[in-house]
Amino acid sequence: MLTGNNMHKWATDLFKICRSITGPGVRETLSYLSKLIPGLTINSVPSGTKAFDWTVPDEWTIREAYIEDESGNRIVDFNNNNLHVVGYSTPIDQWMEFEQLDAHLHSLPEQPNAIPYITSYYSRRWGFCLTHEQRQSLKSGRYRVYIDSDISPGVLNYGELVITGESKEEILLSTYICHPSMGNNELSGPVVTTALAQWLTSLEQRKYTYRIIFIPETIGSIVYLSKHFKHLKKYTVAGFVITCVGDNRAYSFLPSRKGGTLADRAAEHSLKYGVESYDYYSYLDRGSDERQYCSPGIDLPVCSLMRSKYATYPEYHTSLDDLELISPEGLEGGYNILKKAIEILEFNNCYKAILPCEPQLGKRGLYPTMSTVKTTEETRTMMNLLAYADGSIDLIEIANIIDEDVTALYTLAEKLKSAELLKIVNKNDSDD
Amino acid sequence: MLTGNNMHKWATDLFKICRSITGPGVRETLSYLSKLIPGLTINSVPSGTKAFDWTVPDEWTIREAYIEDESGNRIVDFNNNNLHVVGYSTPIDQWMEFEQLDAHLHSLPEQPNAIPYITSYYSRRWGFCLTHEQRQSLKSGRYRVYIDSDISPGVLNYGELVITGESKEEILLSTYICHPSMGNNELSGPVVTTALAQWLTSLEQRKYTYRIIFIPETIGSIVYLSKHFKHLKKYTVAGFVITCVGDNRAYSFLPSRKGGTLADRAAEHSLKYGVESYDYYSYLDRGSDERQYCSPGIDLPVCSLMRSKYATYPEYHTSLDDLELISPEGLEGGYNILKKAIEILEFNNCYKAILPCEPQLGKRGLYPTMSTVKTTEETRTMMNLLAYADGSIDLIEIANIIDEDVTALYTLAEKLKSAELLKIVNKNDSDD
Amino acid sequence: MLTGNNMHKWATDLFKICRSITGPGVRETLSYLSKLIPGLTINSVPSGTKAFDWTVPDEWTIREAYIEDESGNRIVDFNNNNLHVVGYSTPIDQWMEFEQLDAHLHSLPEQPNAIPYITSYYSRRWGFCLTHEQRQSLKSGRYRVYIDSDISPGVLNYGELVITGESKEEILLSTYICHPSMGNNELSGPVVTTALAQWLTSLEQRKYTYRIIFIPETIGSIVYLSKHFKHLKKYTVAGFVITCVGDNRAYSFLPSRKGGTLADRAAEHSLKYGVESYDYYSYLDRGSDERQYCSPGIDLPVCSLMRSKYATYPEYHTSLDDLELISPEGLEGGYNILKKAIEILEFNNCYKAILPCEPQLGKRGLYPTMSTVKTTEETRTMMNLLAYADGSIDLIEIANIIDEDVTALYTLAEKLKSAELLKIVNKNDSDD
Repeated sequence: MLTGNNMHKWATDLFKICRSITGPGVRETLSYLSKLIPGLTINSVPSGTKAFDWTVPDEWTIREAYIEDESGNRIVDFNNNNLHVVGYSTPIDQWMEFEQLDAHLHSLPEQPNAIPYITSYYSRRWGFCLTHEQRQSLKSGRYRVYIDSDISPGVLNYGELVITGESKEEILLSTYICHPSMGNNELSGPVVTTALAQWLTSLEQRKYTYRIIFIPETIGSIVYLSKHFKHLKKYTVAGFVITCVGDNRAYSFLPSRKGGTLADRAAEHSLKYGVESYDYYSYLDRGSDERQYCSPGIDLPVCSLMRSKYATYPEYHTSLDDLELISPEGLEGGYNILKKAIEILEFNNCYKAILPCEPQLGKRGLYPTMSTVKTTEETRTMMNLLAYADGSIDLIEIANIIDEDVTALYTLAEKLKSAELLKIVNKNDSDD
Repeated sequence: MLTGNNMHKWATDLFKICRSITGPGVRETLSYLSKLIPGLTINSVPSGTKAFDWTVPDEWTIREAYIEDESGNRIVDFNNNNLHVVGYSTPIDQWMEFEQLDAHLHSLPEQPNAIPYITSYYSRRWGFCLTHEQRQSLKSGRYRVYIDSDISPGVLNYGELVITGESKEEILLSTYICHPSMGNNELSGPVVTTALAQWLTSLEQRKYTYRIIFIPETIGSIVYLSKHFKHLKKYTVAGFVITCVGDNRAYSFLPSRKGGTLADRAAEHSLKYGVESYDYYSYLDRGSDERQYCSPGIDLPVCSLMRSKYATYPEYHTSLDDLELISPEGLEGGYNILKKAIEILEFNNCYKAILPCEPQLGKRGLYPTMSTVKTTEETRTMMNLLAYADGSIDLIEIANIIDEDVTALYTLAEKLKSAELLKIVNKNDSDD
Repeated sequence: MLTGNNMHKWATDLFKICRSITGPGVRETLSYLSKLIPGLTINSVPSGTKAFDWTVPDEWTIREAYIEDESGNRIVDFNNNNLHVVGYSTPIDQWMEFEQLDAHLHSLPEQPNAIPYITSYYSRRWGFCLTHEQRQSLKSGRYRVYIDSDISPGVLNYGELVITGESKEEILLSTYICHPSMGNNELSGPVVTTALAQWLTSLEQRKYTYRIIFIPETIGSIVYLSKHFKHLKKYTVAGFVITCVGDNRAYSFLPSRKGGTLADRAAEHSLKYGVESYDYYSYLDRGSDERQYCSPGIDLPVCSLMRSKYATYPEYHTSLDDLELISPEGLEGGYNILKKAIEILEFNNCYKAILPCEPQLGKRGLYPTMSTVKTTEETRTMMNLLAYADGSIDLIEIANIIDEDVTALYTLAEKLKSAELLKIVNKNDSDD
């Protein structure tokens, strides 16, 4: 649970920061992460920069925000919970009647103890979010509304790390850093991605190059794609959006738009052999940056491996999605299932039997020399691997057919490769 | 129910006419329809004309037919019900013993109150059909058998209407006018087709050209194909055999031979989003002119959308399939499901997203500017449409994937086209 | 049951012979079969011959083998059951303590009355097999172990028969003759194959050429492939491994590696229309010479049609798999299902309708001239055959679609061919 505990500690450290799609909170978050990930670069894109159909917005800075009653009591205070202020709220300092204020308040009648998470990035307004319980306790009268914010030209920031491997082909890991104090649907993503970055960096060798980005959701992936699309299209063989990987209630899979990419296949194999059960979602249930990565014309092989998926659990996008909702166990599970998917990709060669017919394994010490009624499980698996290694399918597909875990099958495959019974070929190579 | 009432009135007017595959009854029927459908041409093909493996038969005229007992009572009379005489009966005027007559009588022991419908187009014989109840009441003795008919060189008639559209590509609507007094399995077809012809003519614009034919079943479609096959093969993108569209008990679908044509896809989408439930038949259950349109070497994209399918309901091919069996409601349902299938075809463009990534709908007023927990149904549908509009699949396929009715989705698609977010492309166009 | 009785008699004659992968027992077996199959050649491949990854082993001759107790009682004697000696046991003549002997004894605690079948072809050892009941009755003390065998350079034998047909394309029938006294998992294969060879020889004409081989399992098919692979790859259109075809408890199908070959399709059709029910196995359950025929790089279209499959019934590879386990009825069932599969292959032409649209069957006497409510079953089948005979699919596929037995459908197809309504084409021929 060491990794789980580390990740939960990082989440705890980052929880208080008020992140949005731009602003000092993002930079503070990236700065913290860059201490954990040597080599992480922090990039800036100026407000006004065009990115396909979008424009990088002005930067939002929030310093203070509260509602005061006539007695001077701060009844709602941004310092207590940064969800209290609508994201990208314009500045205000004004006394007003309750009726006027009420039009700017947001609460959830069906979740009376939760503060909702609301933003208004591209249309100027101000507002406060509070529990429905508190809202119902407010009396008519006059209130002072105070928001010390500004929205002005600045930059959009994102973090980027490229860990080179033997191949120029890349695995993309994309997570977001744009929500304020929330656990599963914010911090679980960056902290699990950070742990994966540390693990990948620590490996002596990697087949693939890893491109790991910490971006604001939607505008961040669109900006990133607008700058790097050609490269990504050429080199990305698989990618994962890393979000909602911190609670302990479920595992979830959301495929790429058309499904069946190498990323989808590695993810599903990881889940099938890594966890007891998982929820299978449709691309119609999408909601994060796969919306951009898998959009028509972009179509990168990107899917999502999650714990409880966004928009499916009651605490989603409220103050109840907090540090209690996620746990070291939950984060470790999210980390492990992604790590396993990556290992599957690293192990996934296309093996081809070198000899016609079954080889004589006995003379190599790989087969019992005395035939009895039963053969061992491992012998059977080895024969199955040899029987399907025809160079037309990769190890994931063989593993699915013969119902074995790729990460176990890889060891056998390499043993047979050392015995010069299998070789690695490019898929569908006719001959050699 | 206006259309339904109209259609039922036309059926009532046409009910008494004794139709067969040739003869005055067909001409009288076409003459009636041509008053409802301006532009309907009535065509004649002479007896003896070759059509693939077939020859247009001599024309059958029937004027009178009865069986008289020794007391001069007309116990079976063609004037009471034209099903009483076997179709294409040869003339006769002869006294005979009951035993001799009995060999020429047809009845249904299991449906004792129904007169069966029997024909003998290509082998000369005569016969009478009657209820089994009546047959069993007949006593031995002598009977006068009288049939005033003749079978001699003449013509085979069919009606044809071509309504031009923007495209030379055609939709084929084929119905038959060769059965005597029957409702669902005869008149429902021509009257629904007539109403569709009126509606199509009334449209200000049509994408497709419509070819609408009223033919005798089997020999008529074979003759029509033998004359127009090259044209039909080149231009027909979809077609429907219109039969059994008048009762109120079921909806039915019978696919083309291999299924999956544009016609099949439009028909199934129409049923899925147009009615509560429907019966799905196999091409093995075929029985009308799709037998010719879908035969090897012809293979036009033709399927059938029906109410209660021929050969599945007890009244089929008997006197019980009458004007009571069909109803204004039943006919209107048949009309609507075909109209919807045609609309689906008219609306079925292949849309392609113009911009990479999701467009910023908010700045176009197409998306709520404030993000909350839920998005509206329509916004979600619009995003789904954009997400799947990659130019490789048409609107029907997108609609099936995202579970929306094409006729509703089309409005959204055109809205996004106006906003320059979607364009229409030819399916599978790589780029433009 | 004549064939069944013959086959069981042959099995009874062959039962006593001690077969192994080489040696006099194989030759004696082939010599017996060659009297039943004129033209069967007996081939010899010298020890030391290379075959892909394998080498033909030295030949094993066994003359006598027993265990004697101190009183001179032969408590285990090869003469009583040739399963008592481990296959390829080295010679020995030695007194030893029970503890030393015990390490060379094999029995089945869970089947205490069965002698197991054990071999050690490629690693030199000796051993005895006995029932667990007998083993437990053995007392400590001294025993004389006597095996009069030798393992020395010789030959590997196999039988081969080629029955020529109109085409150079071949059907491969492969069975093995390498197990000592066992019934279902040994003798059922050669005797059913012998009966099939007699039947095939007796036919006046055959579309295909038949290659029938009697080989030792594994090493025999590998040797045969190493000598004939190019020819087999070029000409083999379908093949069957014939094993376990003698008991009366089940029918079984084991597909080729990827399935869907002509052999698989004929076998499945034969089972579907030949027997009440059957067990469908996966290629993962393989265990006989399909392991070689379907291996990567070989990939011949070979599957298995069986009664109770090897390794699924309790008597498998023990003395309980005897002449009682198989029966004339069981063998006849195995013979019939293979015969039917072969007939399906012989009948399986690709028919194409000659005329566009439905032909007028009535004028040819093939259709009732009077239309009534019902058409006959045969007429319907004929129309279905014509409707699907588009030259793109073969008779097996049509039969599957219209749910008819190929062997019945063939008669109809030939009737329509005689009527010049169907012709035989090469699959997927565009036109002619």
